Amino acid sequence: MCGIFGIYRVSEASKYIYFGLYSLQHRGQEGAGIAVFNGQKIKYWKNLGLVSEVFKENILKELSGEIGIGHVRYSTTGLPVIQNVQPFCVNFAKKTLALAHNGNLVNAYQIRTELEEEGHIFQTTMDSEVIMHLIVKHLKEGLVSAISKAMYQIRGAYSVLLLYNDTLVAFRDPWGFRPLALGILNGGYVISSETCAFDLISAQYLRDIEPGEILVIDQKGIHSFFPFKETHFKLSHCIFEFIYFARPDSLIFKKNVYLVRKNLGYNLYKECPLEADLVMPFPDSGNYAAIGYAQASGLPLEFGVIRNHYIGRTFIEPSEKIRDFSVKVKLNPVKELIKGKEVIIIDDSLVRGTTCRNRLKSIKEAGAKKIHFLLSCPPIKHPCFFGIDFPSASELIASKHSVEEIRKFLDINTLYYLSIEGLLEAVGELKDKVCLACFNGEYPIEVDYSFRKDIIEV
Amino acid sequence: MCGIFGIYRVSEASKYIYFGLYSLQHRGQEGAGIAVFNGQKIKYWKNLGLVSEVFKENILKELSGEIGIGHVRYSTTGLPVIQNVQPFCVNFAKKTLALAHNGNLVNAYQIRTELEEEGHIFQTTMDSEVIMHLIVKHLKEGLVSAISKAMYQIRGAYSVLLLYNDTLVAFRDPWGFRPLALGILNGGYVISSETCAFDLISAQYLRDIEPGEILVIDQKGIHSFFPFKETHFKLSHCIFEFIYFARPDSLIFKKNVYLVRKNLGYNLYKECPLEADLVMPFPDSGNYAAIGYAQASGLPLEFGVIRNHYIGRTFIEPSEKIRDFSVKVKLNPVKELIKGKEVIIIDDSLVRGTTCRNRLKSIKEAGAKKIHFLLSCPPIKHPCFFGIDFPSASELIASKHSVEEIRKFLDINTLYYLSIEGLLEAVGELKDKVCLACFNGEYPIEVDYSFRKDIIEV
Amino acid sequence: MCGIFGIYRVSEASKYIYFGLYSLQHRGQEGAGIAVFNGQKIKYWKNLGLVSEVFKENILKELSGEIGIGHVRYSTTGLPVIQNVQPFCVNFAKKTLALAHNGNLVNAYQIRTELEEEGHIFQTTMDSEVIMHLIVKHLKEGLVSAISKAMYQIRGAYSVLLLYNDTLVAFRDPWGFRPLALGILNGGYVISSETCAFDLISAQYLRDIEPGEILVIDQKGIHSFFPFKETHFKLSHCIFEFIYFARPDSLIFKKNVYLVRKNLGYNLYKECPLEADLVMPFPDSGNYAAIGYAQASGLPLEFGVIRNHYIGRTFIEPSEKIRDFSVKVKLNPVKELIKGKEVIIIDDSLVRGTTCRNRLKSIKEAGAKKIHFLLSCPPIKHPCFFGIDFPSASELIASKHSVEEIRKFLDINTLYYLSIEGLLEAVGELKDKVCLACFNGEYPIEVDYSFRKDIIEV
Amino acid sequence: MCGIFGIYRVSEASKYIYFGLYSLQHRGQEGAGIAVFNGQKIKYWKNLGLVSEVFKENILKELSGEIGIGHVRYSTTGLPVIQNVQPFCVNFAKKTLALAHNGNLVNAYQIRTELEEEGHIFQTTMDSEVIMHLIVKHLKEGLVSAISKAMYQIRGAYSVLLLYNDTLVAFRDPWGFRPLALGILNGGYVISSETCAFDLISAQYLRDIEPGEILVIDQKGIHSFFPFKETHFKLSHCIFEFIYFARPDSLIFKKNVYLVRKNLGYNLYKECPLEADLVMPFPDSGNYAAIGYAQASGLPLEFGVIRNHYIGRTFIEPSEKIRDFSVKVKLNPVKELIKGKEVIIIDDSLVRGTTCRNRLKSIKEAGAKKIHFLLSCPPIKHPCFFGIDFPSASELIASKHSVEEIRKFLDINTLYYLSIEGLLEAVGELKDKVCLACFNGEYPIEVDYSFRKDIIEV
Repeated sequence: MCGIFGIYRVSEASKYIYFGLYSLQHRGQEGAGIAVFNGQKIKYWKNLGLVSEVFKENILKELSGEIGIGHVRYSTTGLPVIQNVQPFCVNFAKKTLALAHNGNLVNAYQIRTELEEEGHIFQTTMDSEVIMHLIVKHLKEGLVSAISKAMYQIRGAYSVLLLYNDTLVAFRDPWGFRPLALGILNGGYVISSETCAFDLISAQYLRDIEPGEILVIDQKGIHSFFPFKETHFKLSHCIFEFIYFARPDSLIFKKNVYLVRKNLGYNLYKECPLEADLVMPFPDSGNYAAIGYAQASGLPLEFGVIRNHYIGRTFIEPSEKIRDFSVKVKLNPVKELIKGKEVIIIDDSLVRGTTCRNRLKSIKEAGAKKIHFLLSCPPIKHPCFFGIDFPSASELIASKHSVEEIRKFLDINTLYYLSIEGLLEAVGELKDKVCLACFNGEYPIEVDYSFRKDIIEV
Repeated sequence: MCGIFGIYRVSEASKYIYFGLYSLQHRGQEGAGIAVFNGQKIKYWKNLGLVSEVFKENILKELSGEIGIGHVRYSTTGLPVIQNVQPFCVNFAKKTLALAHNGNLVNAYQIRTELEEEGHIFQTTMDSEVIMHLIVKHLKEGLVSAISKAMYQIRGAYSVLLLYNDTLVAFRDPWGFRPLALGILNGGYVISSETCAFDLISAQYLRDIEPGEILVIDQKGIHSFFPFKETHFKLSHCIFEFIYFARPDSLIFKKNVYLVRKNLGYNLYKECPLEADLVMPFPDSGNYAAIGYAQASGLPLEFGVIRNHYIGRTFIEPSEKIRDFSVKVKLNPVKELIKGKEVIIIDDSLVRGTTCRNRLKSIKEAGAKKIHFLLSCPPIKHPCFFGIDFPSASELIASKHSVEEIRKFLDINTLYYLSIEGLLEAVGELKDKVCLACFNGEYPIEVDYSFRKDIIEV
Repeated sequence: MCGIFGIYRVSEASKYIYFGLYSLQHRGQEGAGIAVFNGQKIKYWKNLGLVSEVFKENILKELSGEIGIGHVRYSTTGLPVIQNVQPFCVNFAKKTLALAHNGNLVNAYQIRTELEEEGHIFQTTMDSEVIMHLIVKHLKEGLVSAISKAMYQIRGAYSVLLLYNDTLVAFRDPWGFRPLALGILNGGYVISSETCAFDLISAQYLRDIEPGEILVIDQKGIHSFFPFKETHFKLSHCIFEFIYFARPDSLIFKKNVYLVRKNLGYNLYKECPLEADLVMPFPDSGNYAAIGYAQASGLPLEFGVIRNHYIGRTFIEPSEKIRDFSVKVKLNPVKELIKGKEVIIIDDSLVRGTTCRNRLKSIKEAGAKKIHFLLSCPPIKHPCFFGIDFPSASELIASKHSVEEIRKFLDINTLYYLSIEGLLEAVGELKDKVCLACFNGEYPIEVDYSFRKDIIEV
Repeated sequence: MCGIFGIYRVSEASKYIYFGLYSLQHRGQEGAGIAVFNGQKIKYWKNLGLVSEVFKENILKELSGEIGIGHVRYSTTGLPVIQNVQPFCVNFAKKTLALAHNGNLVNAYQIRTELEEEGHIFQTTMDSEVIMHLIVKHLKEGLVSAISKAMYQIRGAYSVLLLYNDTLVAFRDPWGFRPLALGILNGGYVISSETCAFDLISAQYLRDIEPGEILVIDQKGIHSFFPFKETHFKLSHCIFEFIYFARPDSLIFKKNVYLVRKNLGYNLYKECPLEADLVMPFPDSGNYAAIGYAQASGLPLEFGVIRNHYIGRTFIEPSEKIRDFSVKVKLNPVKELIKGKEVIIIDDSLVRGTTCRNRLKSIKEAGAKKIHFLLSCPPIKHPCFFGIDFPSASELIASKHSVEEIRKFLDINTLYYLSIEGLLEAVGELKDKVCLACFNGEYPIEVDYSFRKDIIEV
């Protein structure tokens, strides 16, 4: 997962991009970058680290200009690959392009192999590089035509920002997997993965970049192109953006995330109305569904675990084993609240199950009489090929185990997953327009299961 | 405000102190220090910064030993004074002492002047240095006697940990201003400002160090002394620890903080039962009282503003003025939730009023129809001389202005402060044992209003 | 200028590369990188900064393997471009290549334009990327053939290390511009820009990679190829490596740098035998020629200026103007030595002349009666197209001004430049094999004067 | 060893002190501090680290004022003790003092014990704290009287700067162990351990603070006091300042260090005139004596080992043993120069002998036929009680071993130490005014051999 942010004709563009990326930091903490057109050429700066670590006042000053794009990149395991930090910048016959991409292609590998046979070479493991090659290949025919041809070839999730000298382009896959919103600011334009970035800089939300749309902003104004004439693409907004990924104060796919999450909690109660002493979230992931469940049930909501806000990146480990140390260092149960109580705990999702099991164990050790654990999404059984960084199927606990087996593994009284129906009901009018592949395995685009990302990793 | 933590006869003492201080980090972020007796002498390390910044694995290894104390120090404005970071360590005729102090004395300046006239010199601006001088002065008469004599002279708030070679001592002022709790761990002892530190390291809470008690832990065991024979001291637990300062998962003065805060919210409803669309806290300070108000009222609780978790220490400022930037960079209102609604906002306290006014303004700009702002404590009108770092009276908004004037300044529909009665009712059996001076000016000890801390500042 | 280092079949390859790069740090301080083949794929790590800043113990551990290459990159002005840090790594149809390059091509831009017309895209401003594209283009014909074809096309200076899975290749331009040496270590091989890197790790120098040679080291052994059948290439070793760039303890082009520099001083005396009280170098650049001059003349050598070893990267500037501050902060004249004396000062070269003028001024202010300033190289009048980062001709003081004009500008008694003959004599048998273009404008390869590097800069 | 620097009535005092300390950095790298009187009170900042690390532009700005002092502290083993970083600041009855001290007292422990019996407490292990206590004790009698009384009591080496509100005082022990020089700058005054600090800021050297002098600079001007009426103090300038410690471009004890060192080399030749192929120093410590030896002998001077300038603080170690790694990482022999040669190596001193042995071994391995190792000082047999941080006698190689034994240990052909006569001859008119205790054990003040510094270490 990543976050992207673009700006057109706003003075001190690099500072606004900085603030925008800062608002999107939850979408990626591994690396950050900004590219700005300074009137003559594109200058950029990027590196591993948080936005506030990568950029300092003097660097933003060097990145002078009024048009630019930025990117935050998600964390991976192992050594982070500095080459993969975006924006991805290339020179092409005295012209320069910079590209920031959120999403994942399913046929990047095939296209890449074909391009390599034509003599192209690749320096990163990013799908984004494939998109860039395709655009450049056709650039002589004009920018919109080149992007269109690229879009005809690539399949998968892509919300893309492209800087081509003083032209800013946004385009989005026809399935609409990842969000992308357009706003106005001081007579200029801003584009962001999520609208929470608009709020910080006091920009106004205008509309979404539509699935399949190419939006060009240049000196002549703002132009919209729809290269796909057919309309057979099934809209497939990533429902996991609502469940977990996006910030609750954002509008994505034109709906507020907070309200959807609350609906998930409502529906959870409709499906699984339990009696208990209290409802509590695992913070902050379960907060909003817990609100919904509590309001629907009339049960009291409590903050049964307290989060330590001073967790740094590196933390000294105890040499001797301290019970539940790794859990308690982040989340400490409020014993006086939990002791002797029957508690309903709400969380947004369960992936591997191991961290969660430790958390639940610490609740039990705090004295809970009974634990009912409710999840505001259905069992995640299938990997995502469109940008959510789930582990492989074999590591997804729900892929191999029944709900009852998982309940036993978690060692709790009740385990309940929201149904797919309950999930869909929560997104209202979008219910036919979402991707549910991680739950039901019905991928909106054919995917190659044998594909493993790391094969081509440098 | 500060946090202190001590340990006796637990292997890898410095690591446990590190974890303890880490749990107490909310009590002070300016500096941290650890002193450990290594069998022969006391070694220590301290510096400006967060616990995780000041200590690294190799430093903790150098601080080998089984007995030690630690301290976290609060933030001040201006250049932080490195000399004031504790523990405070001295040599005295081949013996070494280390002292960690939480609280503030009201007669430190007088004692200091007297000591200076006797030829003593002072290197810091800490009250703690005065305590140390007094103890050392009488040390020949024995440790307990020396501490007793010091306690007879000093007046004010002091929860102190003292390391004297391989002896660990804890002592607390007879008014009981600041908390101090005793626990056991693997056959050894731990002492902490708050019990949340016990939870992290799986220690068991035993009891509080009592007001006026000197607790000595040495090779012969654990010994308790009560130097004050009289019983005329009015117990004066700092009620602000409950309102704002302590962590909600802690037990202080033998009561859980979370439950007290929730009671404050209950009582707020009893006193000020409003109709509205929703109840929301300013996070995280208002969370627990908001829970109480919502449960009492039956109104829905919502998280109307979202907190950005990636705020770093330094943040680049916008050059142009962005509306409410400094508020929104930390807290962003969820417009879809607030727009057109009548909202009750709960916070724990109002000091100067300026930050709060900006926060409320951002709620209004998010579209709130009516704003009712409720505070879970009475108006703060008087400075604290016992360790809470309020500004001077002239900067306390409630000191000069009526509630109605403040309401107009904040530009909201309703402003309500919890009454002193409502506050006392929330702490139950402690209601006669708390200090209310910041609300009613009735200082449990006579204070010198003309005293200004910075006069003696180096 | 850059430094490169490679290793084949030595356990803990990344550590040895680290030490090798550390020895080559004087060849580039802007960035550093290491790529290692771990048995399955190539992993790499690179970033801006000194070798000791970019690499930490844990990173070297992640770069496990026995075969690898590394690179240090020189400093530029403005924002350093992270993308340009080498090794340069690409994926090509499941194979991975990594390349480290020292030197500069003169026809990179033309080739690049042609490649772009074929659809290739470029992400950096490095010539190295052009070499990589050409190799990959022909890789199907076999590695040696592909490299040969690349070498047929490119013109200019290139000493290159290439890692292709578990094969290590070194190749060098037929003019032999930049040095490259082969050594053995524990039964494996090492290749380095300079032999000083061999000394540190106790490797034995074997021989140079020859001009025009492709040296392949793989499981079958070590193989040498010479793709150019013709022998019309004029050997053109960069004489500036001897004058200034290489470390004095290195062997380059099979000659020790220290001894050559000393010869330069000898010859300087032969051409310009002056009387004076003492001979002194500007440290450390003039040290070795000063030794030569002193020995030839019999005049006493003195260290007339003392270097401060604690210069950091950033230094606080005085607000008020302090006389010669920027000079004295690095080099302080020893007044007692200089006062009233007639001094001969030796330095290795004069580029812009401004820094030098300030240094000479500080010598005069220290009381020198007469200053004779002697340079151990001829006037630098022409830019270098082969890797030395001279400024453009207009900034080279000797390009526009006569020796007498420069002497007046420097405000000294004597200014003397070593003659080209004196320079050639100092390198002995290499005298017909060196490039003198920066002195006489006779470029061994035709260059395009209109070419400006920054045109294609991203 | 330490360095001190003071300034009176110069605008931006803290910046000048910063530059002064920067010039004195060679006298101490563990910590640095600056205290400035801002018109009302003394503000200070100090921490562990180099001057350039401890101070940033913003901190210097906070330290506004025209009068101030600074200190750099030497490196010790183990955890550096932050409390010991100077200036040492105290409050005394609304007045504040700051003190910076270079030197070591021999009766600090006794005085301290007495003061402790009077009730004084000590927070550091610095002698400086004892001086401060004594001054404060008598301060009521007036500043000069108080300092005089302190000087009557303390014995040992002390060059001290004292800031007492807006008065700057310098005083120096009557034996004159450590240097201290007075200069003028822009109508104000500067005082420094060495005059190299004056050069950087373009101050003019005026005179030395005399042994036994108290120099007071205040609003009324500059006043000199000599509290010791007797004249029986034997002048005892530390000769090791000339041999090793001070910067060669400094004037100390009114003599230039460089010229003294060169004399040492001359005398070394007079005493030990050897035939050989070349003379070389171990850089940079042996540079100046090597110059002297070479000039006296007529033998060629060469730089036989090259120093790596990029040594950082932490350096990754090889896992496998690389021969002479720790030597070569700093100093690499120039094999081409040394191979088959008979070499005379000059160094300034030999303490433990182990590092030196490794260095000599690397010279032999580079192919030297014969090695003659000459030291520009006599054998160091006795510890220093006056501020040079030699190890205890048992670790001083010359304390237990004859010259012949040391020669065998070093495994070289010749080992020669300069005689005491040769040493004295080199300092000319100062020859009756130096301390030779480390060579001949004749301490100018009675010392207590049983005293061990670390006994009182916290």
